[in-house]
Amino acid sequence: MTDQADGSDPGRRPTMVDVARAAGVSLKTVSRVANEVPTVRADLAERVQGAMAELGFKRNHVAANLRSGRTTATIGLIIRDLANPFYSTIAAAATAVAERFDTRLITASSGWDPARERELVLDLFERRVDGLIVVPSGDDQSYFRTEIDRGTPAVFIDSPPDGCRADTALLDNRTGTRDLVRRLIAEGHRGIGTVTDTLNAYTMGERRAGAREALGEAGIDGGRHAARLHSDRPRSAGDAVGAMLDAPDPPTALFCGNNRILLGVVEEMVRRRTRLRLAAFDDFEFAPLLPRPVTVVGYDTRELGRLAAEMLFRRLESPGAETSNHVVPTYLVDRGTEPAPGRRSPPLP
Amino acid sequence: MTDQADGSDPGRRPTMVDVARAAGVSLKTVSRVANEVPTVRADLAERVQGAMAELGFKRNHVAANLRSGRTTATIGLIIRDLANPFYSTIAAAATAVAERFDTRLITASSGWDPARERELVLDLFERRVDGLIVVPSGDDQSYFRTEIDRGTPAVFIDSPPDGCRADTALLDNRTGTRDLVRRLIAEGHRGIGTVTDTLNAYTMGERRAGAREALGEAGIDGGRHAARLHSDRPRSAGDAVGAMLDAPDPPTALFCGNNRILLGVVEEMVRRRTRLRLAAFDDFEFAPLLPRPVTVVGYDTRELGRLAAEMLFRRLESPGAETSNHVVPTYLVDRGTEPAPGRRSPPLP
Repeated sequence: MTDQADGSDPGRRPTMVDVARAAGVSLKTVSRVANEVPTVRADLAERVQGAMAELGFKRNHVAANLRSGRTTATIGLIIRDLANPFYSTIAAAATAVAERFDTRLITASSGWDPARERELVLDLFERRVDGLIVVPSGDDQSYFRTEIDRGTPAVFIDSPPDGCRADTALLDNRTGTRDLVRRLIAEGHRGIGTVTDTLNAYTMGERRAGAREALGEAGIDGGRHAARLHSDRPRSAGDAVGAMLDAPDPPTALFCGNNRILLGVVEEMVRRRTRLRLAAFDDFEFAPLLPRPVTVVGYDTRELGRLAAEMLFRRLESPGAETSNHVVPTYLVDRGTEPAPGRRSPPLP
Repeated sequence: MTDQADGSDPGRRPTMVDVARAAGVSLKTVSRVANEVPTVRADLAERVQGAMAELGFKRNHVAANLRSGRTTATIGLIIRDLANPFYSTIAAAATAVAERFDTRLITASSGWDPARERELVLDLFERRVDGLIVVPSGDDQSYFRTEIDRGTPAVFIDSPPDGCRADTALLDNRTGTRDLVRRLIAEGHRGIGTVTDTLNAYTMGERRAGAREALGEAGIDGGRHAARLHSDRPRSAGDAVGAMLDAPDPPTALFCGNNRILLGVVEEMVRRRTRLRLAAFDDFEFAPLLPRPVTVVGYDTRELGRLAAEMLFRRLESPGAETSNHVVPTYLVDRGTEPAPGRRSPPLP
């Protein structure tokens, strides 16, 4: 995916700290000059103004607008769990975009609870945030409609909303999983199990559809070893794969719907000293060190967060534009300390 | 560490959503009754008031104070990098505490840049946050003094501030590392290398002091194999340990100052097919699956974030109280898929 920005990215704007450094004066002096406080010594004021001109410093209009009440210069981000690296990476990327617009991010976690999500959304609207980025948890976002109609922008990320029209930034869950399962089939596997969960209704639904597509093309029955977990604890994935392995005609390859599932599965493999061709959605920092080879569907999580935040700021500038959907592409990559069939893992960054 | 709260934790307060559910009416109706909008049908209003009384619902005073401008009901959290799980876990724990006080968290990343940290702090003060929690990056926080003297509370986390007096929440870096290195010595190691970094001046300084203490007790020269990295890229740790192994008289055991250093070291071990007794500061979710046994210093990151946020809200209530310092204890735990000498790893959660 190429850069979606409209070319207006000004880079890092010079700040008062830069001006203070260039002029060799204190930050307080720069602040006084910027705010036209008349008590600054004339020679210092001149030095500061010279540095401002040279660096192209502009007074922070957001701060002025803040004082006048025209903006809160805050946007809200509602995710499911900030302690999960997927969501915290999205938050970090969105923060970086917001900073280019002198805007701060208020982050809140819904903890997968649709009622909590609604409460947080209404609370943030009440705080008059300039816009909202939401990873939706429930299957009904119609309560957004009034605020969106009033012109408060909202962008949905990871899953589309239900019951309102809004911009979305999504992963290509279906293609990624289809390509991954096709690879297992190309290696000769026909007994291919899947472990997914019921927590991520949209993304897991798409991943299951991608797996079904690849299995269907090859005339393989994908229903025989298909577990759907109601928990995100790695242990429950370990139990599910244990049951598959103990059943008659166990699978020879396994697709894990996310990296927490993979974690529980690998632990169970190590405990049983069993081998199984492993494949999973989600790459992660420690994947190269897994004690089993595994092929994963990777993608750029920062790109997802960046895209969503840029869409939000574009909508703030053009409230009437048609809603759009951006899809972040996926790729396959081999991980683990042993090479996957016929491949070598790339080195760590 | 026991619970530091003052016993006033009200648990989850009933919200308008709970009232709407109990009364079987829409959220909008509850909102109208709560805000005394007179257009609600009498029978509905009565049902809502009954549900409010039964659930002990109280109108959101923060919202009222927000409208009157007495509070912004926001606190700021300045960390180094939200994409790092250590900092995002702190943010998640602080968010959970803030929610008990109907307060939202504005999170910003300094990216290890002291000038950026100062800019963010001044910006958040300008936005009139009720208080600040800061993981400091630079070695000069004297610019906090004016705001702290004015009564804006600040709590420093992970590292203490320099140049101002404030509450702190820290890890017991020194004891944790001392106990870990003592264990390596008790196992018979005398060639013990250390890899730390220069980015975390305070925490790495404390960890080096703990290692020195244990080595000194045993009369071991700790300076022979001591690398200090200027980067947090795992690869630079891999290079550092490679140089130690290629030197004459290489170490037989290694202390890694954090989990990113450990990651680079383990990758280099796997690449070289070398064995070295590994020990590291920081436990993490994937540590049980590392392809080498490793003993790590664990601690409760959530506890650290929770403590800091609770200290901030206590100070908001009692601005005149003496500043205090809370220390989160550490423990040793064996990780990796093979048992460490004489131990078994605990199962995954």
